[in-house]
Amino acid sequence: MKYAIGVDLGGTNIVTILMNEKGKIIARNKRTTEGWKGKNHVLKRMAEGIETVLENQRDKETKRQIVGIGIGTPGLVDFDKGIVYEAPNIPNWDNVHISRIYRKKFGIPVFLENDANSAALGEWWIGAGKGTRHMICLTLGTGIGGGIIIDGKVYHGANGYAGELGHIFLSFDGPKCGCGNPGCMEAYASAIGIIRRTKELLKKNKGSLIYKLVEGNLRKITPAIITQAAHKGDKLAIKIWKDTGYYLGCGIASYANIFNPEIVVLTGGMTGACSLLFKPMWKTVRKRAFKGAIKNLKILPGKIPDDAGAVGAAKTAFQRTM
Amino acid sequence: MKYAIGVDLGGTNIVTILMNEKGKIIARNKRTTEGWKGKNHVLKRMAEGIETVLENQRDKETKRQIVGIGIGTPGLVDFDKGIVYEAPNIPNWDNVHISRIYRKKFGIPVFLENDANSAALGEWWIGAGKGTRHMICLTLGTGIGGGIIIDGKVYHGANGYAGELGHIFLSFDGPKCGCGNPGCMEAYASAIGIIRRTKELLKKNKGSLIYKLVEGNLRKITPAIITQAAHKGDKLAIKIWKDTGYYLGCGIASYANIFNPEIVVLTGGMTGACSLLFKPMWKTVRKRAFKGAIKNLKILPGKIPDDAGAVGAAKTAFQRTM
Repeated sequence: MKYAIGVDLGGTNIVTILMNEKGKIIARNKRTTEGWKGKNHVLKRMAEGIETVLENQRDKETKRQIVGIGIGTPGLVDFDKGIVYEAPNIPNWDNVHISRIYRKKFGIPVFLENDANSAALGEWWIGAGKGTRHMICLTLGTGIGGGIIIDGKVYHGANGYAGELGHIFLSFDGPKCGCGNPGCMEAYASAIGIIRRTKELLKKNKGSLIYKLVEGNLRKITPAIITQAAHKGDKLAIKIWKDTGYYLGCGIASYANIFNPEIVVLTGGMTGACSLLFKPMWKTVRKRAFKGAIKNLKILPGKIPDDAGAVGAAKTAFQRTM
Repeated sequence: MKYAIGVDLGGTNIVTILMNEKGKIIARNKRTTEGWKGKNHVLKRMAEGIETVLENQRDKETKRQIVGIGIGTPGLVDFDKGIVYEAPNIPNWDNVHISRIYRKKFGIPVFLENDANSAALGEWWIGAGKGTRHMICLTLGTGIGGGIIIDGKVYHGANGYAGELGHIFLSFDGPKCGCGNPGCMEAYASAIGIIRRTKELLKKNKGSLIYKLVEGNLRKITPAIITQAAHKGDKLAIKIWKDTGYYLGCGIASYANIFNPEIVVLTGGMTGACSLLFKPMWKTVRKRAFKGAIKNLKILPGKIPDDAGAVGAAKTAFQRTM
């Protein structure tokens, strides 16, 4: 049996997992990233995570059978060279040759993957996409990340930039997106987009429960608060999720026409809104996509939200060595 | 050396090509489809095309080394079973088991491919996309067809419906598309979309040269006529191509963010408008796509417009047998 280590370097936490090639999680460690303490501290935290999942392996044979370490990381990555050029939220992170550092330290090969791609691969391997060949993954968070799985592998495109699935246009002149352009799906349906729409609508709906829940402080609005209000019957909150479902549905209908995937997996905190979001989304997808393209389509929330990134990172190590 | 026959079953013509595995065209035949005469007549015309490219091969060895016949066809296709369920413009075409018919007749395997995918594969193999790995192809005609080449192969999706690239949404409530939904790229930038926009704009621009060229009969408007007027400096015609470039640019920018392809190939008659179309299109793509995703991107017109479908069909036969 072969083993691999997967590391998910997140803005808040580092999740480290030791897995076997059959997809079983052998050991797991979660620790805070403490990115504000800078590059060297984060590299040390990551190394500690790796050591922790290794140290309990009494069986030396396991250690010997580890094919590599996979690391899922945000920012700008060179997969081939093993360099992370930029890491958001970590000061003085500057072209870190991360695979050389850990290869030297642990004596095994190190492979990098983009965090959204890692999460997609993790969900494909042992999560919601298990058993499929072609999968689209949307990570609904502050922004909207994406991952494309084709024939069980991450599709990277010509130079690693493929899968920016949040940046499909829904309109010519919609709200401005973080990428600088108007009308991306991300500008409508990410947490930032949802909060912006909520603030606009609240101006004319002062009676909404959302106001009370944030005690009048609009900076406190989060998707979770909107969900809370919606579950208590607040009409504005319900409308906001309905609109969000519509926007996501428009994007997913395009993705169905383009990819004809077996499954679209939605990950990230927002999927907690569940049927509030999924119902209007499905309605739009059914209306807007080709019937043949969605004949057997599933749209499901992620199954392993906490571990998908690390699991996908471990799978990356398996795929690049075996 | 291995050989394959490629057939492009078009609405107007049937193109049949004999190729070797290195991509050299050995023999070629073009004949009218005469679809109005019905199924059996079309099947006979196709068989005649195949016989014609074969009969001049004095070298019996060539015939012996033919791996198969590939057929690129419009309509609804079952690739695995080798059935064409529907063929637009051919009466009484009803679930024709085309691969069984020709396999029996010629004694070699027969493989089907969708016509837009065939054209994409042909352009990838020996045309504008030669030497690339990942390519997107848009066929600009009455509608907008698409083909996705990943790692040198057509990407089909879960059940063969992938690649409907004309049906990416550009707006929530744009003009109605042939697919029934508002706002698809096809509704803006296909020949039908262009002619619709031209007619609208002509209402307020009675002095346009386009009026004269069609002798006041708006039914005679074609993209070629608009190009003719634009080349003579007609402002309205220039604006129409500029807008078309903008719409295509919006779609292609999304495709760059999604696929990060090495090349986008545009085929079909409309590419004759050339810089009238390509300049505004590139301007929009540069503005709207991620810099990394278009760093080395090429957008080129097809190189083998007449043969792409048949060449891709021959390549299909090679790929499925070798």
